[in-house]
Amino acid sequence: MNITVIGLGLIGGSIAADIKNAKISKVTAYDRQSSAIQYALQHELIDSYENTIKAAIENADIIIIAVPIVNFADVLKEIKPCLTPKQVITDVSSVKSSIIAEAKKILGKNISQFVPGHPITGSEKSGAQHCKTNLFANRYTILTPLAKTDIKAIKKITALWKKLGAKVDIMNAKQHDEILAATSHLPHFISYAYIDIFAKRKEIIKYSGGSFSDMTRIANSNREFWNDIFMANKKALSKEIGKFKKQLEQLLCQVQS
Amino acid sequence: MNITVIGLGLIGGSIAADIKNAKISKVTAYDRQSSAIQYALQHELIDSYENTIKAAIENADIIIIAVPIVNFADVLKEIKPCLTPKQVITDVSSVKSSIIAEAKKILGKNISQFVPGHPITGSEKSGAQHCKTNLFANRYTILTPLAKTDIKAIKKITALWKKLGAKVDIMNAKQHDEILAATSHLPHFISYAYIDIFAKRKEIIKYSGGSFSDMTRIANSNREFWNDIFMANKKALSKEIGKFKKQLEQLLCQVQS
Repeated sequence: MNITVIGLGLIGGSIAADIKNAKISKVTAYDRQSSAIQYALQHELIDSYENTIKAAIENADIIIIAVPIVNFADVLKEIKPCLTPKQVITDVSSVKSSIIAEAKKILGKNISQFVPGHPITGSEKSGAQHCKTNLFANRYTILTPLAKTDIKAIKKITALWKKLGAKVDIMNAKQHDEILAATSHLPHFISYAYIDIFAKRKEIIKYSGGSFSDMTRIANSNREFWNDIFMANKKALSKEIGKFKKQLEQLLCQVQS
Repeated sequence: MNITVIGLGLIGGSIAADIKNAKISKVTAYDRQSSAIQYALQHELIDSYENTIKAAIENADIIIIAVPIVNFADVLKEIKPCLTPKQVITDVSSVKSSIIAEAKKILGKNISQFVPGHPITGSEKSGAQHCKTNLFANRYTILTPLAKTDIKAIKKITALWKKLGAKVDIMNAKQHDEILAATSHLPHFISYAYIDIFAKRKEIIKYSGGSFSDMTRIANSNREFWNDIFMANKKALSKEIGKFKKQLEQLLCQVQS
């Protein structure tokens, strides 16, 4: 089997390394940044690389798109004309409905070959240099296939994640986006909003303990990247922010009474 | 020197252990729960204990009150009639203005012997069994003395905290309460409000990663204890909640635009 990973960030790099370590398949990579490729070669995260997406996917059985959501469509557009019928495409994006909408437009009939996925793990750090082995072990990976998605393709991607130690659940994209809005996107949103109240009084941060560190660790994540996630899932996220604000007010009433 | 610690919780127990380990003084303890005393004796956190506050403070040079803020006044009322002029009292409460107001009422002229203090450290866990050695090392302890506080008393308490490795800063109580509202009370408040949105859908928590864990660790703290802190500092906390809500709205505008 041949697997191609497009995008050697924290997630892509960690997937590549786990696949290579477990000898599941040969790993070919593409990343537009040559520094990421160099790092991956030096640290033996990948077997080989190509300088174009077209060349990278030529012999791939599975193509894993592990780029920021804002770059997903562009990558898929490059894949589309070179796609052969047996190839399976998956992704790792934190938001699924918007990704699927783009994929439908770009892939057309080939949409059956796309298995949308999301491994629920990560870090506030980004880039291949922060990749980790066993990052997916005992964590959930959610797949959100469409009615048209090829069953064999779903099985193939499920088997791959299981080999990486992940627990795989299948649900629809809307459900995924609603759940993740609450369990992941909202905490990031809160963390950014919280750290912003210190913008003009950074000097008081030294008078803080573990609660401050916990509340702000994820605000060190790439803000632009997360802003794109917030935008892509704004409907579900807005709803969760509303619920959270209600809880803030309810708790405040208790304190003031 | 003799030091008496009243209340062997996480903070009181850790202070006692550090003082005993560093051989700064003999440590006598009082705790209304005999289980806490038994734990502290077995783990050599203290030298001795007494069954009454009166007996526990009899030979004390320094009396450290390390009880939940809701019990502070009752403890101080028991200390007051037995207090001798050279004894120094300090506390460890997270809120200072309300504690000082109570202390003024109870101690009267003896208020000069009270040095309000707050070591900025802790954990979501409570009780002597979770005490830690070196809990205060390289962390700030803020003292908020009054104009009437005896300078020698302030020096004594400053020296004690420095021996435990703490960095000591002095400021007024209002300033302390405003800073801690932002750096500590608000993160706890947010964490409780955030976890509450999952009250009726605990089953989705499994689909979460590090951001959820970070956001909710401190919500495992004793809620009643923290509610008392919120109440005691409600003015400053409400102001910070207001600022935070503004940031939430501002960030949401950016996402929706």
